[in-house]
Amino acid sequence: MKDKYGFPLTKIGIIGGGQLAKMMAQSAKRMGFFVLVLDPAPDCPASSVCDRVLVGDFYDDNKIREIAEASEVITYDIEHIATRILKILMDEGYKIFPSPALLEIIQDKFLQKQVLYAAGIPVPKFKLLESLEPGSFKSFGFPCVQKARKGGYDGRGVQVIRGYEDLKNILKVESYLEEYVDIEKELAVIVARSSKGEVKCYPVVEMIFDEQANICDMVIAPARISEDVKEEAKAVAVKTVEILNGIGVFGIELFLTKDKKILVNEVAPRPHNSGHYTIEACITSQFEQHIRAITGLPLGSTKLLMPAVMANLLGEKGYEGPPLIEGLKEALSIEGLSFHFYGKSMTKPFRKMGHITILDENIEKAIEKAVKAKKLLKITSEVRK
Amino acid sequence: MKDKYGFPLTKIGIIGGGQLAKMMAQSAKRMGFFVLVLDPAPDCPASSVCDRVLVGDFYDDNKIREIAEASEVITYDIEHIATRILKILMDEGYKIFPSPALLEIIQDKFLQKQVLYAAGIPVPKFKLLESLEPGSFKSFGFPCVQKARKGGYDGRGVQVIRGYEDLKNILKVESYLEEYVDIEKELAVIVARSSKGEVKCYPVVEMIFDEQANICDMVIAPARISEDVKEEAKAVAVKTVEILNGIGVFGIELFLTKDKKILVNEVAPRPHNSGHYTIEACITSQFEQHIRAITGLPLGSTKLLMPAVMANLLGEKGYEGPPLIEGLKEALSIEGLSFHFYGKSMTKPFRKMGHITILDENIEKAIEKAVKAKKLLKITSEVRK
Repeated sequence: MKDKYGFPLTKIGIIGGGQLAKMMAQSAKRMGFFVLVLDPAPDCPASSVCDRVLVGDFYDDNKIREIAEASEVITYDIEHIATRILKILMDEGYKIFPSPALLEIIQDKFLQKQVLYAAGIPVPKFKLLESLEPGSFKSFGFPCVQKARKGGYDGRGVQVIRGYEDLKNILKVESYLEEYVDIEKELAVIVARSSKGEVKCYPVVEMIFDEQANICDMVIAPARISEDVKEEAKAVAVKTVEILNGIGVFGIELFLTKDKKILVNEVAPRPHNSGHYTIEACITSQFEQHIRAITGLPLGSTKLLMPAVMANLLGEKGYEGPPLIEGLKEALSIEGLSFHFYGKSMTKPFRKMGHITILDENIEKAIEKAVKAKKLLKITSEVRK
Repeated sequence: MKDKYGFPLTKIGIIGGGQLAKMMAQSAKRMGFFVLVLDPAPDCPASSVCDRVLVGDFYDDNKIREIAEASEVITYDIEHIATRILKILMDEGYKIFPSPALLEIIQDKFLQKQVLYAAGIPVPKFKLLESLEPGSFKSFGFPCVQKARKGGYDGRGVQVIRGYEDLKNILKVESYLEEYVDIEKELAVIVARSSKGEVKCYPVVEMIFDEQANICDMVIAPARISEDVKEEAKAVAVKTVEILNGIGVFGIELFLTKDKKILVNEVAPRPHNSGHYTIEACITSQFEQHIRAITGLPLGSTKLLMPAVMANLLGEKGYEGPPLIEGLKEALSIEGLSFHFYGKSMTKPFRKMGHITILDENIEKAIEKAVKAKKLLKITSEVRK
């Protein structure tokens, strides 16, 4: 017998209403789903593109229960949420993807590394930091990277320690040490795995970082690396998601070392900044793919239609207030450029306010156009900080 | 000095909240605009993907004024709206695109034909029907097509008169007669023209009609016709929009006659069913293009990334009630298929409930896939009529 879907299809609850939830909601609404969002801000980016907003904290058990009860499938757009209540709800039979058990592993970056390492996934050398005494760093060896076990994102919670002179900057939180990898490129792969076990992989991309803010600045799709390295990167990314028994879309951040080894840096249990280019450049966007994966629908084609470059639009330094966009007309006249603005009510330095994607048959031209657009487009404010 | 856009950019008011408004709103929200919609139904398709819904009739002057006052640019997703109040508002300085003067021409199909004919645009032979006596039809010549001057859409208001025997079926409304054109293919071109006068043209597509319902059933992009005919079709479409001084996106429906002539059939002053494929298949969708055009932004690239076929999902005969979707999983497992469901609360026979778009390098394969998907996907209801 054929499946019959009623209207308004499955109700999808998203914990977190930021730009990822906004783009998930837009994909889900396109397909006819009913979408609810839980966020502390009633005017969060997803608020105006979904059916209902529940205003509440991600650590408020009652609010998490409320969205679960109003939804048929629950997902999230951030990893810093309460897992205890999610586990209780899952035991009660609610569908939560990715699972709270997986989320707990992801939230603790040391545990994440341990799980991946134990499963034979290549990762940088790492060790729990049991004391903040200089000896603990020295015995691991300089240069090294200190990483907070919990709560880090967009470069926060990461400290490079080149030698004794950097020990004044160490993070005073539960953390672990990682070898300082000699990186040729930072790569990323978006992997989707559905509740039926189907797996699809997007093209391998290059991530270029803003060195000052340590935030992903630009993504180049496809990565300018050999086919062999691409195949290896994809195989590692898929294996990572399978080991974690992941359901949904995952962003797997990888290091390509100078000696051509692939190492897993970090796993994001959700659509990822490195996959925004898929909205314009692939047949199925990572956001639609996530919705298909968590609702048990067949996954869509991940085919790249044209090379693409994505660049984040970060709030300019020196401004903090309601955003202004400078240079929009000039940027939009660049052939092949698409503009996304998330609708955050306030800008602040380095805050992700939007992004652009440029499609061009020639990837080097796409990069040039992205650099030009980044120079034109500035997110400022009347309010100087 | 560079342009500066504030948040939430320009406020866009859309009169009508159907599927076209929904897709316009989704494009506008992606770019960060504030979107209001006026519709009699509070749960109209656009309602859950925009910032604010005004509930009211399209012929209610007060409601039209209310949305105008709350917006910086006004547009519409249907042509059957009151133009008198729009003209008053325009005189008061409100920005309304396309203009009410253009809309009045479009609304009266006879006037539309007269204006195009007078400007040298090729159209089928036509004549006002001054009386419903058999002699008026005979003197024009059989076979002919009687068309209502106003209110027709999706095949309504059109009557083919092959001879005296069909005169019992004539429309008893103000109408005109058109020659019965010997058609090789029905074509369409989406043309965008911005408030700055910039013009961009999408690829020429083929429209395949459901003969029973006389509704566009399938769109094939690009059309399988010679380059010469494509160039001529585009030139006629662009000239049509320029003659009308159109601002926004327009769907120009064309006949390709058996003797390879291009004739303009009809103009839609808004994004058009024949351009839905642009969401997945072109760099800039017709909906984003409409938003760019009416807000004075530079137009985006209309490049076709891959051949595509769009098929409408119409309500099945025999059902009228809350919709059910049959065969969704089976259809979504077809490689390259994207699914759109508009979220209308009730299905009825031949109502446009959603559409699918299939991308495939090989257009004939895309057509095969679309035919297969149409057989799998059925919009029914628990309620039989």
